[in-house]
Amino acid sequence: MIYEGKRVVVTGGLGFIGSNLVLRLAELGARVTAVDSCVQGCGSNIFNVAPAGAKVEVLKADIGEPECLTEVLRGVPIIFNLAGEISHIHSMLYPERDLELNTLAQMRFLEACIRMTPGARVVYAGTRQIYGAPQYLPVDELHPVNPVDFNGVHKYAATMYHLMFSRSGDLDAAVLRLTNVYGPRMALDVPCQGFLSTYVRRTLTGSRLQIFGDGTQFRDPVYVDDAVEAMLLAGDARRLASREYNVGGPDALTLTEIANVCTAAGGMEAPQYREFPPERKQIDIGSYHTDSTRLREELGWQPRIRFAEGIARTVDYFRNHLEHYMTPGVTEPECKLKHMGVERGAYRLMPA
Amino acid sequence: MIYEGKRVVVTGGLGFIGSNLVLRLAELGARVTAVDSCVQGCGSNIFNVAPAGAKVEVLKADIGEPECLTEVLRGVPIIFNLAGEISHIHSMLYPERDLELNTLAQMRFLEACIRMTPGARVVYAGTRQIYGAPQYLPVDELHPVNPVDFNGVHKYAATMYHLMFSRSGDLDAAVLRLTNVYGPRMALDVPCQGFLSTYVRRTLTGSRLQIFGDGTQFRDPVYVDDAVEAMLLAGDARRLASREYNVGGPDALTLTEIANVCTAAGGMEAPQYREFPPERKQIDIGSYHTDSTRLREELGWQPRIRFAEGIARTVDYFRNHLEHYMTPGVTEPECKLKHMGVERGAYRLMPA
Repeated sequence: MIYEGKRVVVTGGLGFIGSNLVLRLAELGARVTAVDSCVQGCGSNIFNVAPAGAKVEVLKADIGEPECLTEVLRGVPIIFNLAGEISHIHSMLYPERDLELNTLAQMRFLEACIRMTPGARVVYAGTRQIYGAPQYLPVDELHPVNPVDFNGVHKYAATMYHLMFSRSGDLDAAVLRLTNVYGPRMALDVPCQGFLSTYVRRTLTGSRLQIFGDGTQFRDPVYVDDAVEAMLLAGDARRLASREYNVGGPDALTLTEIANVCTAAGGMEAPQYREFPPERKQIDIGSYHTDSTRLREELGWQPRIRFAEGIARTVDYFRNHLEHYMTPGVTEPECKLKHMGVERGAYRLMPA
Repeated sequence: MIYEGKRVVVTGGLGFIGSNLVLRLAELGARVTAVDSCVQGCGSNIFNVAPAGAKVEVLKADIGEPECLTEVLRGVPIIFNLAGEISHIHSMLYPERDLELNTLAQMRFLEACIRMTPGARVVYAGTRQIYGAPQYLPVDELHPVNPVDFNGVHKYAATMYHLMFSRSGDLDAAVLRLTNVYGPRMALDVPCQGFLSTYVRRTLTGSRLQIFGDGTQFRDPVYVDDAVEAMLLAGDARRLASREYNVGGPDALTLTEIANVCTAAGGMEAPQYREFPPERKQIDIGSYHTDSTRLREELGWQPRIRFAEGIARTVDYFRNHLEHYMTPGVTEPECKLKHMGVERGAYRLMPA
């Protein structure tokens, strides 16, 4: 790949996927700047990039205030754009916060990119949530867009910005639509980060898993190294044949199968089935399974890590670094947003 | 129709399409409240609803500050939601303003609707701009969404809010995707409201028309009474078979044909052809022609007014009321936003 000696910016670089990407880029010899706002509830953790030491520059800055990013963006050829809030539940509780973090901030950031490094390759971390409840399986990139929550709407608006600026030639973007990503450096101390974050947390504490519904829903989790590889390929490709790529895992597993793998790894008692809580039912999408054919055919990507192996690696990582990811004795973290003056419909990230 | 004696709210009720709808609803015996923020640049004009006199209640209020709307929304069964900014050009110059007017304000407004009148029918004025440059003609509702400007992105985000809340049962929305609408009460004193606004203005002043490009592009303008009829049908239908409906005109005409009709009505010299200015070329979508089959089959709608007839009626209206729509001597209005402290990327509608 082309990364050796290359300047690269990673937004959300202290978060879960971002930090794994930053570490891999550092290994490949890139000159990486990790940009992160360290906003509460988005999973940033400075320990995540500790292994890279001085090989990575960390810049605490908000992409929604891109004046701070002028110099770091100037002429940079590749930007991995992962900053944002991923929680569907948070987005329903604090929709204005989600709009500002996932849409307004992206608008400002992309305008800064166009000004400071026109035509740059931007690899954006999108989400399969934009498809909503699948009309067919597996879901390919031509599936209609039907988001069921604010997070999906706002991430899709940001996707449209990327595509619009690519069409006009101002940027050269690739949008990866990621399904459930898991692995080392997940945010375990933030609630509502998706069921896999909860499952990994409980696997580490030995707490019994809960399955919402009857456990027959499908998901195809992606191990974070595979997701990172997809991003590197999208950043590397000389010319992109497409702008949007689905990124799914190697296996479609039922929630029961997923829970059983975790339960075996953590030695808990068998998972417990319960009704969907209403606020989750409203935004549940049923079964999901990705068609990643385009990414394989156009960029040569293949997911390599199967779920049991990925969970084993994940558990192994966290067992060795638990103090950096969980407060002792706290099994289920509490949502801190409500204690921060963040109110439903009233939160404003940016001062006027 | 069901409107007699019925309470109805129309947002953007002093604007071009909104006011025509308000007048028609008043004729049908509805108890109409016209809500309008009177924001500069969006075309609101109190004279538009003068013919209804005391039969219409006018409430100066911003849908982005829905606290003022609590009482008017309480239990109202039908809401026609037309408030917003329609200018593609303004949206590219002032994207944050467009995000706030077309997305943030809609988020707040719909939350207020859900709180005050859960399950209400909401008819939203969407736009064909979300389709971007057509991949095939005529464009039906299954055409992929590919907006080429901020206005398209932000109106589509608001569309997704309407659909999301309909899926969850909180509202019962219909989104009409309107193509170029023209007719009496167009905003002639606001620039960048689409080429038909410019053509009508020049027809009235006898100024020669300009055609960008070679004039072979297709458009299918809709006379405002036909657009209003589509809205009334969508508000009236007991149960909607679909959530999204295209609304196009009776004829696909080339820009040359459209210009020639106006030129004949205004008695100007023949239109002048010129290159697209770059800022317009970037967001130009090429030819567009609507497939309105769904609206015809499911709601029995048919556009009735052909373009030459519609232009004749439009010119006739404005000739009789010109002083309410144009400042004498001003052929091309100037964009006032830049004189209002509205800066590119820095405008904020709402105080923090």
